[in-house]
Amino acid sequence: MVTTAAVLLAGGTGTRLYPASRSHRPKQFLALGDDDRSLLRRTADRAAFADDLFVVTRDSYADRVREAVPEATVLVEPAGRDTGPALAYAASEVSDRLDDAVMLCLPSDHVVGEGFRDTAETAVSVAERTGDLVTLGVEPDRPATGYGYIQPGADHGDHYAVRQFREKPDAATARELVDAGCLWNAGMFAWTPDAFLDAAGDGPLAPLVTALETEDGESADSAFDAVDPVSVDYAVLERASGVRLVPAGFDWDDVGAWDALARRADGDNATLGEALTIDAAGNVVASDDKHVSVVGADDLVVAAFDDRVLVVPVDEAQRVREVVAELRENGQF
Amino acid sequence: MVTTAAVLLAGGTGTRLYPASRSHRPKQFLALGDDDRSLLRRTADRAAFADDLFVVTRDSYADRVREAVPEATVLVEPAGRDTGPALAYAASEVSDRLDDAVMLCLPSDHVVGEGFRDTAETAVSVAERTGDLVTLGVEPDRPATGYGYIQPGADHGDHYAVRQFREKPDAATARELVDAGCLWNAGMFAWTPDAFLDAAGDGPLAPLVTALETEDGESADSAFDAVDPVSVDYAVLERASGVRLVPAGFDWDDVGAWDALARRADGDNATLGEALTIDAAGNVVASDDKHVSVVGADDLVVAAFDDRVLVVPVDEAQRVREVVAELRENGQF
Repeated sequence: MVTTAAVLLAGGTGTRLYPASRSHRPKQFLALGDDDRSLLRRTADRAAFADDLFVVTRDSYADRVREAVPEATVLVEPAGRDTGPALAYAASEVSDRLDDAVMLCLPSDHVVGEGFRDTAETAVSVAERTGDLVTLGVEPDRPATGYGYIQPGADHGDHYAVRQFREKPDAATARELVDAGCLWNAGMFAWTPDAFLDAAGDGPLAPLVTALETEDGESADSAFDAVDPVSVDYAVLERASGVRLVPAGFDWDDVGAWDALARRADGDNATLGEALTIDAAGNVVASDDKHVSVVGADDLVVAAFDDRVLVVPVDEAQRVREVVAELRENGQF
Repeated sequence: MVTTAAVLLAGGTGTRLYPASRSHRPKQFLALGDDDRSLLRRTADRAAFADDLFVVTRDSYADRVREAVPEATVLVEPAGRDTGPALAYAASEVSDRLDDAVMLCLPSDHVVGEGFRDTAETAVSVAERTGDLVTLGVEPDRPATGYGYIQPGADHGDHYAVRQFREKPDAATARELVDAGCLWNAGMFAWTPDAFLDAAGDGPLAPLVTALETEDGESADSAFDAVDPVSVDYAVLERASGVRLVPAGFDWDDVGAWDALARRADGDNATLGEALTIDAAGNVVASDDKHVSVVGADDLVVAAFDDRVLVVPVDEAQRVREVVAELRENGQF
């Protein structure tokens, strides 16, 4: 029987949730919403059915990962280079440690609803059965422009062929893609290490894959340093032939930016922490141990964490990137 | 020669500057602007030419007043009842301590520019010479609706008679009043204790004045408890005959609410504390030791002090009252 190795990606920062996320407290360590567990811990719990648990992270987060997920094998990537190199590294490490494993690759900072295990086990089964790369696709509930889309091809019963990956679309295209039955690329995958490394050897990750296969730590490190940051979607999936698609049977939100909380609001305003709103609607009011009052203002994100406060219109929540860029430049992120 | 007794009113809270002002840290103890000194300390320094210095405050602020203004005689009002009772109490206390004094009554939480002493000495001189109540009038730089106005009457050389006090006007009336040469009532006065107590004996403060004149502390305390909060303008000045007006030869701002900082801004935004603004203008961004970012939003007050954050449009800054009312109800102010 196949060994399922859950591989959690926990090397990112989730900068668009600043000031909740900071360089010293990336998003996966946050306990967003009603659940006291961090997003990382929830992901580990969700993947507990797997035979083995790995977490790929960067050196500076490694201790906290070990503390949050003591049952996991922590893989410290030689350098932060986005999901492509991280997953190549993970594939190499899993391959060294386990025979006949299928990797179930999961972001560690998403919010995922009920029904995850069924979909994940299907994806693992398809990956094992076909030897192909498998991606999970989430059914869109809106024509989002912030995600890539996957167009399903032939129906194979428990999965589809992938006809085409589509990059983050503009608003009009997003509507067309949703109407055409495309699914969101949610960054969750299943594959064997060999299938992945084979596919990765054919693109920008080729030098890294070669270095990893030499089993020489030093050359892997320097190959990591040499590779440009690149997403697994661009570096591997969009170039690979025969990618399979398993539709997700669960709710999903990547909580990528503060506007995600507005989508998840019950009442007039989405609140996290203590808030007082007077004649105010459509706001996201989020804080740690603070008390935030909003009077006579609509559709704003007001986020207060530690000694940092952010105000930005909800529909410009992505612009938090501009703040973070400026803060980084000043060593204040 | 007349003895000038500066009497600083320091019993208020300045609630509209919440969250900078709080029940435990009223506005007069704040160091607003570039000056490190608190508004109270600045007022004491400004009045240092007086022969005696008194500060009227409430019991819970008394120790901090003594610390901030060690040279002052601190008068602790039996109960907080607005400026009318506070000044009656002060008049009684000054009268007990000093012969032939003129009280120079000053709010302790305003920002006042150069030239104060000349105007104040004129007001004291007029009060001593005429035996009448004297009020200072500030030349308006805009048709503000938040202040009372004073219409000057006959010109007496170094002062005017007061023709009429006008309550806080609506916008159209404010413009008329400014055009007609009316001045703002800035809450700064000069009078002898006797002149004030005589005038105050003729209105809602009559029972309090009688009790204060019995020289019996207990009856004064209970009279204080019995009197309704009332401003000195309503309780005394607007009813008195022969009030005199000395035009102020200095810049003045009561910094009553956060929009005051917008008026005093040099650049696109008024900032107090560390702030990052991107594509944002007309905002008041104020904090203690925090860092506040505002992106893509205009004309907002964003104020962060201690564990409190407030967001309100600049032109609705007075609505901070609604926040404070709600917080008080919950014991959170």
